[in-house]
Formats: sequence, structure tokens, C-alpha cells
Amino acid sequence: MTKTFRRKLDFKAGRVDMSHGAGGRAMAELISSIFKDAFGNELLEQGNDQASFPTPSGGRMVMTTDGYVVSPIFFPGGDIGSLAVHGTVNDLAMAGAKPLYLSASYIIEEGFPLGDLKRIADSMGAAAKAAGVMIVTGDTKVVERGKADGVFISTAGVGVVPDGINLSGDRARPGDKVIVSGSMGDHGVAIMSSRENLTFETEILSDSAALNGLVDAMVAAAGPHLRLMRDPTRGGLAATLNELAHQSGVGFRIVEDHIPIKRQVAAACELLGLDPLNVANEGKLVAVVAAEAAEGLLAAMRSHPLGAEAAIIGEAVEDDQRFVQMTTGFGGGRIVDWLAGEQLPRIC
Amino acid sequence: MTKTFRRKLDFKAGRVDMSHGAGGRAMAELISSIFKDAFGNELLEQGNDQASFPTPSGGRMVMTTDGYVVSPIFFPGGDIGSLAVHGTVNDLAMAGAKPLYLSASYIIEEGFPLGDLKRIADSMGAAAKAAGVMIVTGDTKVVERGKADGVFISTAGVGVVPDGINLSGDRARPGDKVIVSGSMGDHGVAIMSSRENLTFETEILSDSAALNGLVDAMVAAAGPHLRLMRDPTRGGLAATLNELAHQSGVGFRIVEDHIPIKRQVAAACELLGLDPLNVANEGKLVAVVAAEAAEGLLAAMRSHPLGAEAAIIGEAVEDDQRFVQMTTGFGGGRIVDWLAGEQLPRIC
Repeated sequence: MTKTFRRKLDFKAGRVDMSHGAGGRAMAELISSIFKDAFGNELLEQGNDQASFPTPSGGRMVMTTDGYVVSPIFFPGGDIGSLAVHGTVNDLAMAGAKPLYLSASYIIEEGFPLGDLKRIADSMGAAAKAAGVMIVTGDTKVVERGKADGVFISTAGVGVVPDGINLSGDRARPGDKVIVSGSMGDHGVAIMSSRENLTFETEILSDSAALNGLVDAMVAAAGPHLRLMRDPTRGGLAATLNELAHQSGVGFRIVEDHIPIKRQVAAACELLGLDPLNVANEGKLVAVVAAEAAEGLLAAMRSHPLGAEAAIIGEAVEDDQRFVQMTTGFGGGRIVDWLAGEQLPRIC
Repeated sequence: MTKTFRRKLDFKAGRVDMSHGAGGRAMAELISSIFKDAFGNELLEQGNDQASFPTPSGGRMVMTTDGYVVSPIFFPGGDIGSLAVHGTVNDLAMAGAKPLYLSASYIIEEGFPLGDLKRIADSMGAAAKAAGVMIVTGDTKVVERGKADGVFISTAGVGVVPDGINLSGDRARPGDKVIVSGSMGDHGVAIMSSRENLTFETEILSDSAALNGLVDAMVAAAGPHLRLMRDPTRGGLAATLNELAHQSGVGFRIVEDHIPIKRQVAAACELLGLDPLNVANEGKLVAVVAAEAAEGLLAAMRSHPLGAEAAIIGEAVEDDQRFVQMTTGFGGGRIVDWLAGEQLPRIC
């Protein structure tokens, strides 16, 4: 008898069973065959319950986490794995940070296909590599059939904000300009279309992408004139602007016609009864910038592939009530409110 | 109309609904009323999608994550919230790190009682405070009824290892002594007894606890003679020693009679058909230390409340096959193997 970790996984027909979460040999094999291969880096290879890395020198650190429960798990333009990397990288980048290290925690339903798990892990590994971050530590738990829905992933991330950069949601001031990096609503509409089996002439893809490269270009262009950035995920642009209005104690006035929205996304929203301003994005950001630096920042964003359709959509104004107001295409106006209840469950 | 976040939560009869995960006002209220109150610290109060803190000076950083799916959510000696803090704090402490910051990601089933969620958050806040760490950032997702089981929590943590401390699972050498900090199996048996409605003369409590204080005392006592530490959670002492044998390329010889096991835990294990060496602990650690420092380390551990029952249980030996061998109470011997399959689902 030679002692070994190996219990060869069957990626074609195999399924996750409770033993894969039990802390024994089956779990070790799962981790080794699926995650170590997909994420391959020397920190993960340490094989401890924690990853150790040099303390960054200078700057401030940031930490963030997000859980991902998107349904379906595979969707046009991405999957839960790439989304779990992009979302957490973006939350770090929104603080002006260079994202460094991610952790990944998997909660898997018994019976989940091993091949799908491998596909998701490979997608995460590729997304991490493209974004220049390492997935350095992780955990897997398995729950009984019917006690979860396929797989849920929580990622956390740490990064470093270089000295001199100070972005925060409370820094918008009246007169500042509001810029979005591209078209609104793509991710949410891609998910909903996929869920409802809607088909369009042109397939609507999720915009899921890592924004740290775009952010680097923005920080270089606007420097201290850049007040804040935030990615309009759940709740969409409407929720993000309302959050920022509250944090900064200002109002916002935006112009509907200036907000980039893809024609097929607008059409799908009408069909689905959705307001694109409430719909989640996963590869877009909202920036608030001092007025004098707005045009320069816009030009820098448009030179980056992920900011090619960037647009100035409005400005911050004095408003004790912290309203987000929009001039509509018809020349009227309306309040852009938070969504009161639930519109798009499990969009991310 | 005054615009406000408030939609007062009913902690007596209220339940989580899909709107609490939708990114709108209901979610903002949930976070504000449950989590900000429970975790109260200035970093969380920043209200951004990420927390920002000074880069630690010197040392190396460590990062870890764990998902928690324990069932039942409330158990004798703890709950999923305190467990989610202790487990992640311990994974940091096992590297010799001072735990600093935690993130928390919640995946909540629609219909989960708001009062229970508050109780869990309060328990996490108290556990974090007691362990000297801050929960600085978090995320909540809600999935439809039947798509999760109450609540799952993933925590990630970062900490700093002071210069000169270098602990890793690959550092055990033949001749080193193996020490456990206390009785084995308490957590797993507490969960299983609670699940099976077993009652004993003395209630068996989970040992769930933060070990960073004990670790400080151990590092002070043994310094560079301390080779490694690991907490024997899922898979118990058996899995931990087998992991370490593989990482370090040694065997272990342990003595059954030297392993502290509570009388009622041993009795419950017999009743449940469990081997206490496979059963999870959540407030215990295994240390490997150079032989000449073992007695000093043991004394230091015994002076700490969480190490009062610490014991030297065996030693590392040369063994190409990396076996964990145990001298049994009857004077015989047996191989202590990994658990092949699944024994105790959802123990943490």
C-alpha cells in the first residue's frame, strides 16, 4: 500500500459529493486537481490554511468582500467565477488601489458536476491572471442536495492605494462632474435575457470586466481632481448615485440623453419592464471629478478599451434633500430613486 | 416627503425577503440596523465598498478565508457567527500572525428570521471584539427560499506576522515533539449531539474560541523553536497530522493515552460511532516544536486558560511513507489515516 492523495476525479460525469467537503483525502484531491491547477501560484502552493506575502511598502491598504449567487452560473459574457474575480478586483480599484491578492470561499451543493466546477475555477484563474492578481487562499464547503443552488462563491481581496490618492464616497462637491465609463445595464439584461430565454438579433453580453487598468489611466490623468469612483452593480446607476448623494451630502442632476445605453439593452428593458438605471453593471464605473479636470479625464477614459464610450452625464449640486434628479429625453424631469423593493434577484 | 433610509426592521417577527439583497433601500437599512450596530468601528463606518487602513509596518502579511455552513446555526457553546470569527482568526494565528481585519460575506435564505440574523451579527461583533480584530467590510446576498439553508457566512482575514517568526506546515523535523492545546473532539460532538438531540449528564459545549492570545504566549515561550501550528478543524487531529506529515515529509508517532479527550466526549463518540481523532475542533491547536523547547512551551501553554489541558502527544519521526502511527491504550499500534469519505457533514 502506498499512501497517496490521489482519487482521480472524473470531470466528464463526476459530481461533488459530501466527502469533498469533509476535510479528508477527497477534499485534498478536489483542491489539488481543480483549484491549484487553475490558480497556480507560489503563495497557494504553500499549502497552509493561510497565505503569507510581503507587507506592501507605503500607501494605504484596502480590503473588500462580495458573495456571488448569480443564476444562471454560466451566462453570455461570463460566469460566476470570472464575475467573482472582476467584482472584487473592481471594489478594490474603485478606491484607487492596485489589487494584489484574492481569497475564494466555495459553498457547493452536493451533486454539482465536477466538470462545471473545473470550468468555473479555470475561468477564475484566467480572470485573475488577466487582472494581475493572485488567488492565494481558499476554502470549500459542501452542503446537502437542495440546501444550496449549484455553487456560491465569496471572494475577498486586498490591495494598496499609492500615497497621495484619496478617493471616498463622501468627496463629491457641488459643481463636480459625473462620468460613466460606458453603457448602462448590460450585465443585468444579459442575465435576465438568459434566464427568460429571450433572444435578440445581437446577443446581449454581460460587461463583466476588471476595471483596474482603466482606473490606472484615470488616476494618471486626473490626479487629485478625481473625487471618487464606484461601480454601479446591484441597484444600478440609480442606487449608486443615491448612495453617493447620501455619503457626500449633495444632490445630483443628470441628463437622460447623455447616459449611454445600448439600443438592444433599452429594447430588452422595455420588454422586461425594467428601468436600465436600476440594472446591474459589472464592468462599468461612475466617477465624480472636479469640473476643471472633467474633459481631460473623459479623453483619457475614451483612450482605454473599457472606457471607449465614457460620457459626462451630469453634475453634483447643492441639495439638502440629496435628490438625484434627471432631465428626461422629453425635456421634463424626474427623481431617480432607489428601487424600493426587489427587481432583479441573483443578478450577481 | 423627507428622503430617508429608514424602513424600520421588525426583529420579533420580521423575515429576510428578496429586497434585502437587491442593492436598494431595504438592503441599506438591513446593513445599517444589523451589521453596523453589531460591528461598530470607524473603518466600517466609511461606508464604501471597501475598507481602507494603514499598511502595517514590517513583518509579513497573511490572508485566509473560510466558509461556514454549520447546522444547526445555534449550538451549545456558540453559533455560526462566533464560529466564523474564531475560525478565521485562528487560521491567521496559526501562522504566528496578529489578526487585524476581517471581512464577512452573508448568503441568506429568503424567510430567515431578522431576529436570528441580528443575534448572529451581535455574536460576531462580540467575538471580534474579544479577539481584538475589526470586521471592516461585508456583503449580503439573499437567495430564494429553498436555495440555501438559513444563512451561510464566509469570512476572510488579514494579519501580520512579526519579523523573525516563520511557521509553516513543512517545518516538522524528526525528533520534534507534537503538542495539542487541549481536549479533542468537543466541537464536533457538541454539534452532532445537538443535531441528534442527545443529552448527557453534563452538556457538551463546542470549544469554539479565538486562539490568538494563546499563540502569543507560545511564540513568546518557544521563539524560533516553534516549527508550526495548525488548528485541527474538519477531519480532526487525524487529518491535521496527515496533512503535516505530507507537507513536512515526516511520519508521526503519537500515544493514544496522552491525547486529552473529555470523558463525556469519548462516551458520545462511542454512541455515535465516531472516532474522536476525526472529529472537528474549533478552539484547539496542534503545535510541533523542537524537542529541547517542548517542556517550556508546554508550561507556557498550561498557564493560559485555553491551554490548561495541553499535552505532549508524540513526536515526528523519519518515515518515507509519511504514516501517522499511534500506540493504542492496549499497547498495540494502528495507523491513524485520513477519513476516506464523509463522516460529519456541515460541522463548521
